Amino acid sequence: MDVCEPPLSEYALTVSCPDQKGIIAAVTHCIAENGGNILSLSQQSAGDIGLFMLRAVFRGEPPFSQEQFQQSFLPLVQKYRMTWELYDRARKERVAILVSKTSHCLYELLLKHQDGQLRCEFPVIISNHADLRPVAQQFQIPFFWVEAAKGKAAYEDQVQKILEDHGITTVVLARYMQILSPEFTRRWSFRIINIHHGFLPAFMGAKPYHQAWHKGVKIIGATAHFANEDLDQGPIICQDVARVEDSLSIAEFVQLGKDVERRVLFEALRLYLEKNVFVYGGRTFILSKV
Amino acid sequence: MDVCEPPLSEYALTVSCPDQKGIIAAVTHCIAENGGNILSLSQQSAGDIGLFMLRAVFRGEPPFSQEQFQQSFLPLVQKYRMTWELYDRARKERVAILVSKTSHCLYELLLKHQDGQLRCEFPVIISNHADLRPVAQQFQIPFFWVEAAKGKAAYEDQVQKILEDHGITTVVLARYMQILSPEFTRRWSFRIINIHHGFLPAFMGAKPYHQAWHKGVKIIGATAHFANEDLDQGPIICQDVARVEDSLSIAEFVQLGKDVERRVLFEALRLYLEKNVFVYGGRTFILSKV
Amino acid sequence: MDVCEPPLSEYALTVSCPDQKGIIAAVTHCIAENGGNILSLSQQSAGDIGLFMLRAVFRGEPPFSQEQFQQSFLPLVQKYRMTWELYDRARKERVAILVSKTSHCLYELLLKHQDGQLRCEFPVIISNHADLRPVAQQFQIPFFWVEAAKGKAAYEDQVQKILEDHGITTVVLARYMQILSPEFTRRWSFRIINIHHGFLPAFMGAKPYHQAWHKGVKIIGATAHFANEDLDQGPIICQDVARVEDSLSIAEFVQLGKDVERRVLFEALRLYLEKNVFVYGGRTFILSKV
Amino acid sequence: MDVCEPPLSEYALTVSCPDQKGIIAAVTHCIAENGGNILSLSQQSAGDIGLFMLRAVFRGEPPFSQEQFQQSFLPLVQKYRMTWELYDRARKERVAILVSKTSHCLYELLLKHQDGQLRCEFPVIISNHADLRPVAQQFQIPFFWVEAAKGKAAYEDQVQKILEDHGITTVVLARYMQILSPEFTRRWSFRIINIHHGFLPAFMGAKPYHQAWHKGVKIIGATAHFANEDLDQGPIICQDVARVEDSLSIAEFVQLGKDVERRVLFEALRLYLEKNVFVYGGRTFILSKV
Repeated sequence: MDVCEPPLSEYALTVSCPDQKGIIAAVTHCIAENGGNILSLSQQSAGDIGLFMLRAVFRGEPPFSQEQFQQSFLPLVQKYRMTWELYDRARKERVAILVSKTSHCLYELLLKHQDGQLRCEFPVIISNHADLRPVAQQFQIPFFWVEAAKGKAAYEDQVQKILEDHGITTVVLARYMQILSPEFTRRWSFRIINIHHGFLPAFMGAKPYHQAWHKGVKIIGATAHFANEDLDQGPIICQDVARVEDSLSIAEFVQLGKDVERRVLFEALRLYLEKNVFVYGGRTFILSKV
Repeated sequence: MDVCEPPLSEYALTVSCPDQKGIIAAVTHCIAENGGNILSLSQQSAGDIGLFMLRAVFRGEPPFSQEQFQQSFLPLVQKYRMTWELYDRARKERVAILVSKTSHCLYELLLKHQDGQLRCEFPVIISNHADLRPVAQQFQIPFFWVEAAKGKAAYEDQVQKILEDHGITTVVLARYMQILSPEFTRRWSFRIINIHHGFLPAFMGAKPYHQAWHKGVKIIGATAHFANEDLDQGPIICQDVARVEDSLSIAEFVQLGKDVERRVLFEALRLYLEKNVFVYGGRTFILSKV
Repeated sequence: MDVCEPPLSEYALTVSCPDQKGIIAAVTHCIAENGGNILSLSQQSAGDIGLFMLRAVFRGEPPFSQEQFQQSFLPLVQKYRMTWELYDRARKERVAILVSKTSHCLYELLLKHQDGQLRCEFPVIISNHADLRPVAQQFQIPFFWVEAAKGKAAYEDQVQKILEDHGITTVVLARYMQILSPEFTRRWSFRIINIHHGFLPAFMGAKPYHQAWHKGVKIIGATAHFANEDLDQGPIICQDVARVEDSLSIAEFVQLGKDVERRVLFEALRLYLEKNVFVYGGRTFILSKV
Repeated sequence: MDVCEPPLSEYALTVSCPDQKGIIAAVTHCIAENGGNILSLSQQSAGDIGLFMLRAVFRGEPPFSQEQFQQSFLPLVQKYRMTWELYDRARKERVAILVSKTSHCLYELLLKHQDGQLRCEFPVIISNHADLRPVAQQFQIPFFWVEAAKGKAAYEDQVQKILEDHGITTVVLARYMQILSPEFTRRWSFRIINIHHGFLPAFMGAKPYHQAWHKGVKIIGATAHFANEDLDQGPIICQDVARVEDSLSIAEFVQLGKDVERRVLFEALRLYLEKNVFVYGGRTFILSKV
């Protein structure tokens, strides 16, 4: 006879606070006392600004209770003035992908997801063009074509409605060639990830590969960042580069750049979904993998 | 009146053991109870072989005592079957550099040391050739030229005597072109770091750049590893690579390789001195920096 | 009224021969005399073995004739003992992709092809498993499932027949997990490109990521090479690497390796299709892009 | 009896002009006719701006004469509107190194030079501080300490005089922490190479590592460029990068950056000395090595 027990829940706990003594011991002790078994723990201090960050993944052994843990954790929160979050890893983010006409970033996310490398769901793809509908169909994901013709406000209302209808929690801009309004980015603050096809903070704005070519840079890059009201200036999550020979044309920069863009966007989303993106003082901190 | 208190001592604690629950909490609790304030903690599990590793750096606040800590740590050692080590970071390793004729690795170590990037002393340089004596003189380090003519046994006896006379604790082979005897490597087990000018495990033995060129590889590398009785087969500490155009000659491989060799050897020694090289099952594990 | 003139033909000329004086001038003069306008020329010498290589792409202006060019080129061939080839760039290679169960390399080739980055046709996909049939269907390419059950000889006969029926000129093994017979590889000599998921010549054979993990390497790689009768020993066309943290599991090596494999296989095929892979003395030479 | 003949002279010819047909054939024909044997030839077109570039290295066989070559080359210069230069490779550039207090770039140049990797002479080191005099002495190079106290004009006059007295043809700023006047940079136009410790065009100006850290970039870089009157905006010659973990401090950025700076500056100088830096439209083009 087989008795199926429910799998034990896994939690990710993230903590940031002013750097002080004893935080690690206090946190790990509290987890242990509540019946949590730490699977991995990563911690670092940004000495330049006196910031402490910790990320622990633990398994709750019966009778572990999320509510009880939170209650016993609150004194630490107060004592150390913590910013913190506890995530039940069984609850997946629901991510909407916004695209325009180019497919390389979209394919990358869908293929990596299909391969089990992204801890999320993709309930919907939204675009200001119809071009990528066949890709959505290949992966059997609802596709919404929202025409931008009626003006930005009406357009964004429609997008917002689709996001709400599908219970979306995070938005990924996968080479989405529309500028979002400040209202929209504020509403989704730190929940929109954009891929910029340049090595920020150089080459903000339009046609970064053209800018890079005319500047004669020897290395090009791409940057995934949180979108905020300052175009291409939100906190950077992930970056990568590729060396370019001076014999390459602008068009070849664009082609070569696609490979960088897709891997940077994937990696940024992966880090975000693993709850490993801390934001402080206008920049992010990614903890080392353990 | 100024009262100078001695600076608080810093310790590095390294632990490896079979992976079990509760180790992190137990270790951090023990450190805290003894008056240790953790500065950084890094931990990881090698799930494929069920191995847990932890490295903590902490400051001992008065009346912290190394002996007392060790005593209160012993029950954990037994319970979890730990391999462990506690290092007083004020005690620097005394490293002998062995060289032959090429200077690039020697210069790298001496310059990085001069720049404060290596937590060690270099009390002596030993060589089977006289060529690099001027470099040793530039940096005011005693230089011993030991002629290999009298046979390996006599030669190694002389080297061993110099090492003992200078209280050497670690040996670095910085492009040292002599094969050490099994007796010698066993005596200095896991305390000799060698730089091999190839991407191990490919291209073991002599003239690896020649081998690589004739094989037509598109990337060359260098490998720093612990020297043991199997030539070029000891556990790997650090590796790096450089892309090579097919227009390069063997001589250009050699030149390009020098840059890879020197940075790999430096990084391996740095990791070793920071007590961040765990050896298990014939391979090393380096913990993520925190 | 529109008059459509046929576009001028482009040719790629490749030459290798013992290194001597005057070859470049002689070749470029012959091209110019025949009405060819050089678009790009790349040349290099492998001084270590006295080998000269040249690749020129030129446009034939009327009344350029391929036959006439060849005739006027023959004296040079004899004088300099050249190995040479003239390719009409309008004639695309017909490439068969052989796969087993994993899709990442297959997707890469199909998506890059769709994006216009591969100068070839993919008339057929062949597999020893049925798993990837849906991918072939997405891209509307005929898919043949050939069961290996009847023995290698019968199996390879079937594959050979499919290749012939479709006029295939080149075979790509895109993570194809069958060993080909010496007869087969000889028949398709220098026309089969394989991707090996390891950094050759280290880690030949099965489970290279397992080997790499247990060896504790700090960098993993993938290698695209011509398949010949010596498993994983044919001339290397392209290699790339990825740095691995020691906190990664074998399974994570495998995942990370996929990205390296797919870009290496794509690049190798691209270089091959651009007629930029010279083979000499058991290794390849890729000329610098111009 | 041994008769020593003088070694044959080697020349580097560089050409840039509007892209047209037949240039390669015309140039190689002219070299051959004059008794020049081409050792290597590299050519590329920047299609985006219709620019053709060529670099040939050839050996002049007796009775090759530089003057006669120039005369027979002039018709091509006029026909194709060429910018061109013919260098006798036996004539070495005389390079002055300007430094301030940090030694890593200075050491790099001196050690690579000692190793035979730089085709130049270093007749003099000039500094606004006395700190690096011992390094100059180690390598037996005259060292001039010019105090900046008397104002920029007087200061630069003194520097200029030293440069003239030593027959200097090129100036390298090896982490030289003074801003040069527009008069000075104009006088030495395209003959001053500076290393900027940031990935230009991001992070111009002071403290680029501080800027980079506060921006939270995941990759840092260094850039060698021609110095002109726009601080840190001259044409880029060479760039490289290093990945940075978010656990690094600003001070560690600085340390890590040193390795990038030194190799970028060395490589830029090497390319410059090999006459492989073409400047056009405010950017540089480096031809592929052949």
